[in-house]
Amino acid sequence: MTRTSRAVVLEEFGKPLQLRRYDVPTPQEMAALVRVEYAGVCGTDLHLQSGHLPIPVPVGLGHEAVGRVDTLGPGLTHDVLGNELAPGDWVSWLNNIACGRCRFCLVEQQPTLCTGSRRIYGINQSADQWPHLSGGWADYIYLQPGTVLVKLPEAATPQQVIALGCAGPTAVHGVLNEVRVRSGDTVVVQGSGPVGLAAAMYAQLSGAKKVIIVGGPATRLELAKRLGVGHVHIDVFQVADADERTEIVHGETDGAGADVVVECAGVPSAVAEAIDYARPDGAIAVIGQYTDHGPTPINPHLITRKNLNISGSWGFGARHYLGYIASLPQLVANFDIGQMVSEYALEEANSALADVKSGAVVKAVLRVGDE
Amino acid sequence: MTRTSRAVVLEEFGKPLQLRRYDVPTPQEMAALVRVEYAGVCGTDLHLQSGHLPIPVPVGLGHEAVGRVDTLGPGLTHDVLGNELAPGDWVSWLNNIACGRCRFCLVEQQPTLCTGSRRIYGINQSADQWPHLSGGWADYIYLQPGTVLVKLPEAATPQQVIALGCAGPTAVHGVLNEVRVRSGDTVVVQGSGPVGLAAAMYAQLSGAKKVIIVGGPATRLELAKRLGVGHVHIDVFQVADADERTEIVHGETDGAGADVVVECAGVPSAVAEAIDYARPDGAIAVIGQYTDHGPTPINPHLITRKNLNISGSWGFGARHYLGYIASLPQLVANFDIGQMVSEYALEEANSALADVKSGAVVKAVLRVGDE
Amino acid sequence: MTRTSRAVVLEEFGKPLQLRRYDVPTPQEMAALVRVEYAGVCGTDLHLQSGHLPIPVPVGLGHEAVGRVDTLGPGLTHDVLGNELAPGDWVSWLNNIACGRCRFCLVEQQPTLCTGSRRIYGINQSADQWPHLSGGWADYIYLQPGTVLVKLPEAATPQQVIALGCAGPTAVHGVLNEVRVRSGDTVVVQGSGPVGLAAAMYAQLSGAKKVIIVGGPATRLELAKRLGVGHVHIDVFQVADADERTEIVHGETDGAGADVVVECAGVPSAVAEAIDYARPDGAIAVIGQYTDHGPTPINPHLITRKNLNISGSWGFGARHYLGYIASLPQLVANFDIGQMVSEYALEEANSALADVKSGAVVKAVLRVGDE
Amino acid sequence: MTRTSRAVVLEEFGKPLQLRRYDVPTPQEMAALVRVEYAGVCGTDLHLQSGHLPIPVPVGLGHEAVGRVDTLGPGLTHDVLGNELAPGDWVSWLNNIACGRCRFCLVEQQPTLCTGSRRIYGINQSADQWPHLSGGWADYIYLQPGTVLVKLPEAATPQQVIALGCAGPTAVHGVLNEVRVRSGDTVVVQGSGPVGLAAAMYAQLSGAKKVIIVGGPATRLELAKRLGVGHVHIDVFQVADADERTEIVHGETDGAGADVVVECAGVPSAVAEAIDYARPDGAIAVIGQYTDHGPTPINPHLITRKNLNISGSWGFGARHYLGYIASLPQLVANFDIGQMVSEYALEEANSALADVKSGAVVKAVLRVGDE
Repeated sequence: MTRTSRAVVLEEFGKPLQLRRYDVPTPQEMAALVRVEYAGVCGTDLHLQSGHLPIPVPVGLGHEAVGRVDTLGPGLTHDVLGNELAPGDWVSWLNNIACGRCRFCLVEQQPTLCTGSRRIYGINQSADQWPHLSGGWADYIYLQPGTVLVKLPEAATPQQVIALGCAGPTAVHGVLNEVRVRSGDTVVVQGSGPVGLAAAMYAQLSGAKKVIIVGGPATRLELAKRLGVGHVHIDVFQVADADERTEIVHGETDGAGADVVVECAGVPSAVAEAIDYARPDGAIAVIGQYTDHGPTPINPHLITRKNLNISGSWGFGARHYLGYIASLPQLVANFDIGQMVSEYALEEANSALADVKSGAVVKAVLRVGDE
Repeated sequence: MTRTSRAVVLEEFGKPLQLRRYDVPTPQEMAALVRVEYAGVCGTDLHLQSGHLPIPVPVGLGHEAVGRVDTLGPGLTHDVLGNELAPGDWVSWLNNIACGRCRFCLVEQQPTLCTGSRRIYGINQSADQWPHLSGGWADYIYLQPGTVLVKLPEAATPQQVIALGCAGPTAVHGVLNEVRVRSGDTVVVQGSGPVGLAAAMYAQLSGAKKVIIVGGPATRLELAKRLGVGHVHIDVFQVADADERTEIVHGETDGAGADVVVECAGVPSAVAEAIDYARPDGAIAVIGQYTDHGPTPINPHLITRKNLNISGSWGFGARHYLGYIASLPQLVANFDIGQMVSEYALEEANSALADVKSGAVVKAVLRVGDE
Repeated sequence: MTRTSRAVVLEEFGKPLQLRRYDVPTPQEMAALVRVEYAGVCGTDLHLQSGHLPIPVPVGLGHEAVGRVDTLGPGLTHDVLGNELAPGDWVSWLNNIACGRCRFCLVEQQPTLCTGSRRIYGINQSADQWPHLSGGWADYIYLQPGTVLVKLPEAATPQQVIALGCAGPTAVHGVLNEVRVRSGDTVVVQGSGPVGLAAAMYAQLSGAKKVIIVGGPATRLELAKRLGVGHVHIDVFQVADADERTEIVHGETDGAGADVVVECAGVPSAVAEAIDYARPDGAIAVIGQYTDHGPTPINPHLITRKNLNISGSWGFGARHYLGYIASLPQLVANFDIGQMVSEYALEEANSALADVKSGAVVKAVLRVGDE
Repeated sequence: MTRTSRAVVLEEFGKPLQLRRYDVPTPQEMAALVRVEYAGVCGTDLHLQSGHLPIPVPVGLGHEAVGRVDTLGPGLTHDVLGNELAPGDWVSWLNNIACGRCRFCLVEQQPTLCTGSRRIYGINQSADQWPHLSGGWADYIYLQPGTVLVKLPEAATPQQVIALGCAGPTAVHGVLNEVRVRSGDTVVVQGSGPVGLAAAMYAQLSGAKKVIIVGGPATRLELAKRLGVGHVHIDVFQVADADERTEIVHGETDGAGADVVVECAGVPSAVAEAIDYARPDGAIAVIGQYTDHGPTPINPHLITRKNLNISGSWGFGARHYLGYIASLPQLVANFDIGQMVSEYALEEANSALADVKSGAVVKAVLRVGDE
């Protein structure tokens, strides 16, 4: 008897998402079928829905998820780290498959900049084409050969893994690979959404002496404090003036400015502010400017005068995703990240999106399975 | 009989420079008296004269010069590289003495960011105070103990050394220390003044396959071509549209963008343009934004999207100055940099400044001595 | 009618190679059949023949080659850099296919350290298994899907490309990726075989002021001089005492020691000598120790005392191979590398191996085709 | 009335130290007189006494100490970080004054490699020459102009500061500046003396997931466990076979080898063992090979094969010393380093040296003052 799976599908830009039902395919060679248990809702999903990004519709959404192996295709016996796989195992996977053949994959070894045909689950795979189930907001997802599939460590619960589903690897890329946080550094993190909180956690795990979070609204900063994330919290709604915020940052750093600033706010003006926060010879990671809002006023004199180093960081690839998975035991031993999550049923996907848009929740997660 | 020395002094901001005469002092312990032969005129001198920088007046100008040792103070027997010194030796010197005691001198080891009492010849030493002769636009200059004094290599003529007096070490800092040019790279240099030409030379010496100079006016680009500096020359007066320039740069790089962009133009908008020129994962050195012209529109999305690395580079210190001096044999073997120079008599300092301001010359040099 | 191809096969360790004949297969999807024109003979082939390396026999040898496209399998239309491919095009290819799935491929992004099932043409593909033609010492080679295949640039002749077939990408890895040669540096290269000469060339292209080659025998150093490779040449047969060589190196560097030392000699004691050559705070690339000869006496105190940086460099991957191909126009514009080559017919493979063993030639190349 | 000060003086190599008495000098311009409270005994002192190092005798020993300002010379009003100084303030100081003028001070910015006349308190200042009191094993020490003098942070007690007097800055240099420990790394530290323990602490503060200490004797490892330093402890006296130790390390790292190895053992063979411990593409810091014991067998093939990065690290300079001082609040919040110390009276200097030699204590400290 053929099994079927629900899937939340974006059929038309700007319209509510629809629940569809597809037959569950049998995995071909080196592919896998996974029973989704938890799937994250991300700021990017808002941009997808609104039509700001050039994707095909209809598309089954869901680019961050965890689940249990249902069926392994012929030949697929181990995850990418060499762990044996069996039905029932908890797994997660990198949401994109870089082409592995273009200049950026081969020569620059920066697959996040892949210019070939990069497949992204929940984003650019048409729901109308086989295997249909290519998004995580569904009962089942079909993982193509070449997917970076990894068994979850026992130290972390699936809820914890999904809490930083996209944010964790994004922060690994920016904070552990693009800039260097040294033991004893003072770090400013701009933004208190999932990426900002993850960046602050990695800065603390890297030995930062003081982490200053500049974000909001108050509920998010309260959560940060409860989690032990950040030592100083500046609420941009309470301290609405950028100069005043800069003054506070300088006051917290003995007048010197921050050793490292990690921009995770997404607001263009945050980059100008980061330049003000940084100390001479300091480093800035720009990891939050995913969306093109056009130019913003920035003073280039300060880049020269302060001898700054500014590093952009785009998305994440296998090394960052596996870095995130590897860091989970340390992360959850230090921060109770499950508290970030607000759960919704699969049928509530539209509400979940609305709550992410309004900032009512920090991290919306669809609770798909029964566990 | 007491000797006297002429000195060109800025007495009042915005007013013509005056020729004064001072007694020539006898050097104290570890100090040196140098007979100036050539002294450069630099864009910074324009800013000093106009009063844009917070300096004391009256000040004897001239922060780049070469000359011959007149008298060595007791204890001063060798230059900083261990070469013996004697009267008559051709020498040059770093124009600033960092404090050696502040956080940036000691902990960060970035003395160009020195926050202590950094003395700068020809810029912040009052002409009214002993030893009066603290600028290079004079017959004699008094070099304090602690000055980074270095004997000139025989391979280069003094005229060649002064041709890139400030520009050479500035480019060493930006091109050799802040970014990395690899053999085979394509490099864009913005600006065709002395710093731009020096940056292009160091990029070529570092193995750049193609150097694209974006500058002007035409006379400067003609000089660059004559010197063999740059492989492609884009005249900003002829190609006045930034988008068109970007298109040319991309065309010259197989559509990829430049591996490295070195901003030496000083115009704020050049930084936004550098971001457009760079390839994904490329590097940008911002070494020309010395003056604060305030904010300019820059699109921060591109920093994230292109995973760029942007490095500011402020001035130069001993390591860069000595790096410049060490590079002279290679520089002059490849580029006839003496051609950059237009000579003026010491009395013609005001004309020289005017010609620098109008762009009529690439590098104005005061011919002080008789050799 | 079925075509057949000759292939030089190692059937038994320590025995002469045999000429076999196989049917020429038709390429499957994404595969390619290439008509070999030139194939290099490498020191590694000696180790393969003698049985020092754990490979399956029989194996068709030849892990560096260039040729012309004979037939493209379905779907294969472009090389990895996006150039269109057609029968008759001159091409070359990376000799190994990393698994793309192990920790070193995915997380560390060091595919040369791949611990998965890495296929190497001419080394670990059994000649008894289809497609049989998996080595370059043959009329035809069958390139599997996933091979890093690249069209040759017109600026270099195929003879020039093969001259540094393995040596070029090995040197790119060591000299351009593991250490940094700065404009003005003094570099010692140990070894004057193909890898040593290639390392010296890249050091010169990177702006090294002085390159000192420590090698031999005299014929190789003479060739180096003819090619303009190296500025100082020390013959280890004439200067047989290591201390004396060290003294010469220090004499050539004003007593300071070399900024960078690149070990390409393969003799274990060369590493101890490299440590003596290097200046304090200098860098050493160890790229020639391919074979395990066991321990050699090295003084670890000098590593601490001189604050050295020592970088090992193992083989080459796609980024280094494509880096080599990209550098060819610059390489051949500066060095007439075709002069390194001594040609042999395919039937003379055993003689070629013998001449490589005796050091009678610098670079033996099998001239397979007719062009 | 003239005050006098006791000083422990090494008069003759290989002989017991003598207690002398000198007049206490008045500090000249920019100098300082400090009342010593605690002075550390270091392995180097053993080498000094035995005559293994080329120093002048008689010399007042003591190159690591803390104390309180007694008298400030004219002009000395602030420490190097800009804190105001007054008599009675707790201070410490870098034990060496680099020349600031040689190639390594100026060009390479590696003052620990200073080749000029570097003055070292307690090591190369003759006790027979004024001001006589140039070592820390004395009631008073005279600090020359140019000494890197720093006020102690209130968060740490003077006993804690002296516990890692030399070891702390040595580890800062090696662990924070020469290699990079990333959050999540597994780190092996060889040696469990003060340098080894300090290295392990900085690795943990930098986010190392697992720190494996290979050292001994058992008492030192017990102390490490009590302090929470290291997660796995291998006793070289119990596990006397190097291969067995390597097997344990690989077992603790899932067979991969360590990401970073920090050699702090001083035994030459430790470097060969470090190479065995390291994972492919791993990093090794060689910071313990202070003494020249001559060559040891090392297999250079592994450097190439494993693509290793090996960094030597010599002593410490201002940036490392101030880095240590800055890290004290974090250090003592995590590790009760005062437990490392065994106190002796100034008159017991010979016993203290003997106990350091026998390994009976981890860190011997002379309790000079009354506090």
